[in-house]
Amino acid sequence: MSQVTVAIMMGSKSDADIMREAANMLEEFGVSCEMRVLSAHRTPRECAEYAEKFRKNGGKVFICGAGVSAALSGVVAAHTTLPVIGVPIDASPLGGMDALLSTVQMPPGVPVGAVAIGKSGAKNAALLAVRILSLSDESLVGKLEQFRDNNKKKILDTKL
Amino acid sequence: MSQVTVAIMMGSKSDADIMREAANMLEEFGVSCEMRVLSAHRTPRECAEYAEKFRKNGGKVFICGAGVSAALSGVVAAHTTLPVIGVPIDASPLGGMDALLSTVQMPPGVPVGAVAIGKSGAKNAALLAVRILSLSDESLVGKLEQFRDNNKKKILDTKL
Amino acid sequence: MSQVTVAIMMGSKSDADIMREAANMLEEFGVSCEMRVLSAHRTPRECAEYAEKFRKNGGKVFICGAGVSAALSGVVAAHTTLPVIGVPIDASPLGGMDALLSTVQMPPGVPVGAVAIGKSGAKNAALLAVRILSLSDESLVGKLEQFRDNNKKKILDTKL
Amino acid sequence: MSQVTVAIMMGSKSDADIMREAANMLEEFGVSCEMRVLSAHRTPRECAEYAEKFRKNGGKVFICGAGVSAALSGVVAAHTTLPVIGVPIDASPLGGMDALLSTVQMPPGVPVGAVAIGKSGAKNAALLAVRILSLSDESLVGKLEQFRDNNKKKILDTKL
Amino acid sequence: MSQVTVAIMMGSKSDADIMREAANMLEEFGVSCEMRVLSAHRTPRECAEYAEKFRKNGGKVFICGAGVSAALSGVVAAHTTLPVIGVPIDASPLGGMDALLSTVQMPPGVPVGAVAIGKSGAKNAALLAVRILSLSDESLVGKLEQFRDNNKKKILDTKL
Amino acid sequence: MSQVTVAIMMGSKSDADIMREAANMLEEFGVSCEMRVLSAHRTPRECAEYAEKFRKNGGKVFICGAGVSAALSGVVAAHTTLPVIGVPIDASPLGGMDALLSTVQMPPGVPVGAVAIGKSGAKNAALLAVRILSLSDESLVGKLEQFRDNNKKKILDTKL
Amino acid sequence: MSQVTVAIMMGSKSDADIMREAANMLEEFGVSCEMRVLSAHRTPRECAEYAEKFRKNGGKVFICGAGVSAALSGVVAAHTTLPVIGVPIDASPLGGMDALLSTVQMPPGVPVGAVAIGKSGAKNAALLAVRILSLSDESLVGKLEQFRDNNKKKILDTKL
Amino acid sequence: MSQVTVAIMMGSKSDADIMREAANMLEEFGVSCEMRVLSAHRTPRECAEYAEKFRKNGGKVFICGAGVSAALSGVVAAHTTLPVIGVPIDASPLGGMDALLSTVQMPPGVPVGAVAIGKSGAKNAALLAVRILSLSDESLVGKLEQFRDNNKKKILDTKL
Repeated sequence: MSQVTVAIMMGSKSDADIMREAANMLEEFGVSCEMRVLSAHRTPRECAEYAEKFRKNGGKVFICGAGVSAALSGVVAAHTTLPVIGVPIDASPLGGMDALLSTVQMPPGVPVGAVAIGKSGAKNAALLAVRILSLSDESLVGKLEQFRDNNKKKILDTKL
Repeated sequence: MSQVTVAIMMGSKSDADIMREAANMLEEFGVSCEMRVLSAHRTPRECAEYAEKFRKNGGKVFICGAGVSAALSGVVAAHTTLPVIGVPIDASPLGGMDALLSTVQMPPGVPVGAVAIGKSGAKNAALLAVRILSLSDESLVGKLEQFRDNNKKKILDTKL
Repeated sequence: MSQVTVAIMMGSKSDADIMREAANMLEEFGVSCEMRVLSAHRTPRECAEYAEKFRKNGGKVFICGAGVSAALSGVVAAHTTLPVIGVPIDASPLGGMDALLSTVQMPPGVPVGAVAIGKSGAKNAALLAVRILSLSDESLVGKLEQFRDNNKKKILDTKL
Repeated sequence: MSQVTVAIMMGSKSDADIMREAANMLEEFGVSCEMRVLSAHRTPRECAEYAEKFRKNGGKVFICGAGVSAALSGVVAAHTTLPVIGVPIDASPLGGMDALLSTVQMPPGVPVGAVAIGKSGAKNAALLAVRILSLSDESLVGKLEQFRDNNKKKILDTKL
Repeated sequence: MSQVTVAIMMGSKSDADIMREAANMLEEFGVSCEMRVLSAHRTPRECAEYAEKFRKNGGKVFICGAGVSAALSGVVAAHTTLPVIGVPIDASPLGGMDALLSTVQMPPGVPVGAVAIGKSGAKNAALLAVRILSLSDESLVGKLEQFRDNNKKKILDTKL
Repeated sequence: MSQVTVAIMMGSKSDADIMREAANMLEEFGVSCEMRVLSAHRTPRECAEYAEKFRKNGGKVFICGAGVSAALSGVVAAHTTLPVIGVPIDASPLGGMDALLSTVQMPPGVPVGAVAIGKSGAKNAALLAVRILSLSDESLVGKLEQFRDNNKKKILDTKL
Repeated sequence: MSQVTVAIMMGSKSDADIMREAANMLEEFGVSCEMRVLSAHRTPRECAEYAEKFRKNGGKVFICGAGVSAALSGVVAAHTTLPVIGVPIDASPLGGMDALLSTVQMPPGVPVGAVAIGKSGAKNAALLAVRILSLSDESLVGKLEQFRDNNKKKILDTKL
Repeated sequence: MSQVTVAIMMGSKSDADIMREAANMLEEFGVSCEMRVLSAHRTPRECAEYAEKFRKNGGKVFICGAGVSAALSGVVAAHTTLPVIGVPIDASPLGGMDALLSTVQMPPGVPVGAVAIGKSGAKNAALLAVRILSLSDESLVGKLEQFRDNNKKKILDTKL
């Protein structure tokens, strides 16, 4: 059975289109991941269990996307010692400000690294995970440099 | 052992001054309560267990106060079928907006009734609990009417 | 004449689509309700009278939805000793922030339990009402547990 | 008995320092007023009665100051056909944004003219009342021009 | 030449759809008005002149609608002693919050009565003007009561 | 008579402490300036005249500081073709958000360059003015480079 | 080779529609400009180099448009002594508030003049640049007056 | 020479009190760090060089604290492939909302993990760094578990 390195969790199936951006980005870097719908509020026990077991199963980084009162990343961070990245999702008339504040304003002791609201955030969550993994996987450093160079080239080649 | 009707939970000892307003108000109505510091993020298991057992132990209403990414009321609501009232606490430079949105913007399926930020909210949380309890305790109806009449009298007697 | 347990009030006919979510949820639990359009600003007297009589008529919980300067839930709470749940409705370019603050920031003495903006809030208002009613109607406890289990199952069965 | 032209209402005694700015300004213009503490939430009936009778008693303008979920001006406007001016008061950690939105975002049909948060707003509420009264009291026009000229002179004479 | 009682000013032709709500409402009450596009920033002199002359020409109330940095109502208030009502217009990605704060947060000495953002505000601006005019035109009192009764009837007759 | 290059205007004497930061910074660069209290709302005519004449008198840049509904910079920009820099001042419970939006959200056609709220903004307004003046005064280029180098050195020499 | 007077930079190709408004406006005034996509985050070195060389190449003003965490204008200002105008772009669910605050809230020492969010801001950025250039190019003064007069005429000729 | 694992950067000496919380926390875990004042705006070149060299020198994680338009973490992320954690600092009247949005709303391609505003955020930044380092340093896993257990014990031992 192939091991999963990054767990991409989300609070609701409706978050999948956004969180798939993270999965696609990880795939681009050859990092294995699995996407799971698990809600801090509706499946608290399963969510806690999944978070607790992931490190023992060889997992390394969590990426958690959630909207409105976005408790998922904080609850996962409470049940693991692995790094947790939170993606706020715009799922209410407040433009994602509710999810952003719920994700980023964690009390001291239980850290979550928050990224931008929505698809940009999901992509960057994956890139932050790859940067973290690159500390113990030299091959990812080169891929990150390549990714950066490609991005740079795309911008420099832009025709207006 | 005397039974506890309302559980007043808070995420941190620093919230106690505010949450004591709720306890004082309940005491005024002769409703038993206990105050507990239990964090959704730092003691998730104990928090969940406490929430799960309270109904079986004869408890009836939860009042949960928390600041910043205020997950407490939502996590408690996930582990009980009792009514949960959330008190957002102003504990960051954002004036309590973070706690307010984290408390009130709950996803469908896991209800929390949010009250105002801070001491006003703590008092009203207790009053809302008393109104709830008055549905099955006729004596509280009279006390609520008395409380309302006293408030009214105080305002009408105001000298400027 | 069948008795009504929950009054679902709204400030304008345009709020009906959102507030019907509360009615549908209550129906799922077999809790009787009636929907009424009554405005704190445009029919203040009728609104006050309705609020005052509901308890005597056997009513138990109010759910009040309103947009912009959402005075309805507060005005109802001023005229009853029953629990009042407020649903902020997004009815202006401010994304419902006006209705949310008007609903939740009640002064001490007159409690309202606020839920999320819009349809999620309307659903949760009904669920909070059911939790409240379950304190004196044991059959609702089982239904709430069943509802929670169904929700959990739906999430765990999600295919991405 | 001397007739009162402007009613200065406020939701709580703690608002009196701010609302007295309105009374002082009216006094400067020789406009009679009375200050009354009456709460839309805690004395709804008395508040409604006062609002309803004021026109018959010769009153002409309402100035209503309130904080948090500031329902006072709207409720008064619902019970009178006189012009109502609302003064939002900063009485929570949200900097008065709650009172401002509750005061200004009135639904169509029940108008309130909102002024700035706090003392500046209270002063301007009085000045707006004087402008309104000047439509049927020519002597006030001259006083308003004088007031404006004095203000202008004060600014032009400023030494830095 | 028929005299104009209410001046409806707006900063840009694109505001006309919203401000016409005010004109229609005034027409319903038989109050004469004229709509003028005059910008505080792009036609400052004409704007000042118009504001200065309106009282002498028999005008009584200003209604000023503007978006973004909505200086119009404040500038008009600076050039007249007549009452000025400001209508914030949602004309930027900020949902009208910019126009609302620019309109309502006037410094002491130059009063503007602000109403809600957009069409609701425009309607209420007209109703506030009618209330003001009713102080010296008894016939408008009856019409205001009739308007209120019609509104009430519409709400009470609502079928859901 | 010595010519003034930069006009530092402010809406109220209470803004002087903040705006003096701009004057001090200009003095550091040897750029002449004068500070004037002139209000868009309370001295509109004098404000307009001052703005209109400044270019003819050899003036080159305006720096305008104002709080709340900060119309000053926009009104000045309406009466000159010179560049106008706006400094929002925190003068209400809203933390300067009112002044910021009033200053920066100008309608197309009348440009204002806004800087940060308060003293930082006042300093940067002066520096932006110096950058502008450096386009036709070569000596200022060297001073700007020197200023930048000094700032850099201060940071690099910081001992923690 | 024709010299470029104004550099219009943007952080992403998707900003081009908005920033072209600045280019069109400059063209109307006969001011040469070039549009460049260069990102403070994705091409930091090229961005810095471009900013550093522009003054030596005869350039005079920067206009920088960027969304979300809009670092571009600040980074350009750090690498030049020329005046820099920042255009916040609405590129997230937060309505451009993120870009606005990132652009305008610069620390002391590195000035950026911010304009309104979006197309209005882009137009005004160009007009502010023209005003700046008019200090050393008398012909632009006349054109600015002509532009203002045309704008005025358009408004005065508006038919409703 | 002892190697540094975590670089704690800050934009200004005034941020040191807050960022020292991160240093103290890292020290508690035996993780080496150095604190450096380097500004994205005032020392852009030194900032970029420091960011570029840190990985080669054996560094592993960046923690960057900055206020207002907080460009530091983003600029550092642009010059390294290491993980970057951003700490927004409350340094303006906007309560840190400016720093929060500037830090968290990064465009896709350049990831920053943001934590809470102020001291809580600085502590959590250190804890997130330790979690990241624990992926390749087994001894830190035990320390993280110990830290979590101590935190839990402190809460469970709280006496009210």
